[in-house]
Amino acid sequence: MAGGGEEAATARNKKVVLRRHVTGFPTEEDMEIVDDTAALHVPAVSTAAVLVKNLYLSCDPWMRGRMSKHDDGDVVPAPDFVVGEALANFMVGKVIDSAHPEFKVGDHVWGTSGWEEYTLITQPESLIRIKNTQLPLSYYTGVLGMPGLTAYAGFMEVGRPKRGDSVFVSAASGAVGQIVGQLAKIAGCYVVGSAGSDEKVHLIKTKFGFDDAFNYKSETDLSAALKRCLPDGIDIYFDNVGGATLDAALLHMRKGGRVVACGMISQYNLEQPDGVRNLMTIIPKAVRVEGFNVGGYVHMYARFEEEMVEYIKEGKVVIMEDAVEGIESAPAALIGLFSGRNVGKQLVVVARE
Amino acid sequence: MAGGGEEAATARNKKVVLRRHVTGFPTEEDMEIVDDTAALHVPAVSTAAVLVKNLYLSCDPWMRGRMSKHDDGDVVPAPDFVVGEALANFMVGKVIDSAHPEFKVGDHVWGTSGWEEYTLITQPESLIRIKNTQLPLSYYTGVLGMPGLTAYAGFMEVGRPKRGDSVFVSAASGAVGQIVGQLAKIAGCYVVGSAGSDEKVHLIKTKFGFDDAFNYKSETDLSAALKRCLPDGIDIYFDNVGGATLDAALLHMRKGGRVVACGMISQYNLEQPDGVRNLMTIIPKAVRVEGFNVGGYVHMYARFEEEMVEYIKEGKVVIMEDAVEGIESAPAALIGLFSGRNVGKQLVVVARE
Repeated sequence: MAGGGEEAATARNKKVVLRRHVTGFPTEEDMEIVDDTAALHVPAVSTAAVLVKNLYLSCDPWMRGRMSKHDDGDVVPAPDFVVGEALANFMVGKVIDSAHPEFKVGDHVWGTSGWEEYTLITQPESLIRIKNTQLPLSYYTGVLGMPGLTAYAGFMEVGRPKRGDSVFVSAASGAVGQIVGQLAKIAGCYVVGSAGSDEKVHLIKTKFGFDDAFNYKSETDLSAALKRCLPDGIDIYFDNVGGATLDAALLHMRKGGRVVACGMISQYNLEQPDGVRNLMTIIPKAVRVEGFNVGGYVHMYARFEEEMVEYIKEGKVVIMEDAVEGIESAPAALIGLFSGRNVGKQLVVVARE
Repeated sequence: MAGGGEEAATARNKKVVLRRHVTGFPTEEDMEIVDDTAALHVPAVSTAAVLVKNLYLSCDPWMRGRMSKHDDGDVVPAPDFVVGEALANFMVGKVIDSAHPEFKVGDHVWGTSGWEEYTLITQPESLIRIKNTQLPLSYYTGVLGMPGLTAYAGFMEVGRPKRGDSVFVSAASGAVGQIVGQLAKIAGCYVVGSAGSDEKVHLIKTKFGFDDAFNYKSETDLSAALKRCLPDGIDIYFDNVGGATLDAALLHMRKGGRVVACGMISQYNLEQPDGVRNLMTIIPKAVRVEGFNVGGYVHMYARFEEEMVEYIKEGKVVIMEDAVEGIESAPAALIGLFSGRNVGKQLVVVARE
């Protein structure tokens, strides 16, 4: 209940604050850890807010875009972060006070909050109450959260797999890629992944069950690597990286192929993006290159969650997380995404309960 | 009927022959006019061939691809032209002998034949008999032929227009572009075109009824030109040119926008294509960039023809042709496409009857 007349308890509230807008490659120094204080009750005047203790913060490549300063009118998936304020992203948290009838103290929720220990969420309609508490809560930053829905909706709705399709996934050990590959196997596809280390390539082939994989950093010719792994071409390319890998994949798309343009992490820190030179090949091959962002697919969440929980329980989808401890570790974890330091879904454990 | 026992009449048969495979910008010297002789009867052994007198030859940008030598395994819309043999493309012709029950002497047909005066067509299943002989026969090289079907299927099936959509068309006075713009008006869209001369811009706005148009050669900033003409952005970009125009258009696509990648004439003569730098914008805007070639839509021809004939009769679609006389003029007409010399649909009148 809203903490109207009660004693206004407070707690330390460490935050990860944006120090300056970023151009080029971000560094930890673009952020700083600030000690603040949070009231542990929803303000008495509120009729709807929820106070959440953040347990797990999600680190996702798309946050890079929000660290830049955009021009008015630029189409962006979410507003720029504000200098001097906490970054924000998806999290799993626990309700510690609530003025909203749908959320009760002790509920676990996932949704968007600040990169801080406690967040007062004034529009809790964006929160989703977690029912499947028998699975690790952290899964709601990944396989059962936005990266999972991204993989599912992007692959199923935009990629439209058919049994026997050849699928290529870049950043294949990452939060989205690892799930796309496993969904592709479930759909009866042949699936090849790329990643940036031999350790990741090994994981992709063993833990995630891809049919084949290659280390893009040690290949001298990406097109030749694709030809070797997928001699008959690609029906679906699930693109998480853009740049040279996209350009090479375009050369190998089959007639009627689909490129799910989900992310282009190789490009996020460039002031001038690489030019994609092989786009012309989509004409004779009638290839569809479709930009995907999960914002348009949130209505699918309930169906997705039900299906994915089953896959996890049956062992058809396995998950690899890269969890760092403590909110102070968050800036390095975020920056590490852009050098591929993480192995699996990157998240920050702020607290376990 | 097949000319089995009859006298083997012959005629002069001038041909446009490929002299060498082309890299870079093609020239008239890559072709030569050769005097040959044609038998005017289907060979007695044939049970299906049709001998066609070519009346109108179509000049289309896509022929450029066939003038190059491709590697085995390259996906191309049609085989490379053979050095020493006649080029080939769509034509309108008249049957002067036939061993095929569906085609009779005197029938007008359209389909693919050689760049020559007479062609023996051994697979006449690819020919279409022209029923609407009350319209100019040359229309079957354009608005009622492959360019028309390209415009119709590309715009309607890939572009999927909705009333009120903002549409941008490049090469808007060309064979395909002029029709796309008029179909966009019929569909209740706001339509802007680009072209390479003030004369063409004037035509686009007056004769073809586009809402606005600009000369891409005299604009210093294509993005600014698009912003001026389409301040609220683009729902459908029908791309005939690729390169810098595509890159600029990507910046102005609206959420959920569609790019019909139909042609990239700005790129056909480059040994290294321009890089498209703004492709990343398709992700936040969920833009679909779909390669289109008419090969997959031939089944729509009958429906398309019926609808288009009505539009022409009602004056809702008007046509501009750029016709040159004589097969000797064909090489220059073809080369002229790549400098934008033609105004409207380029064709060659080989004979009128």
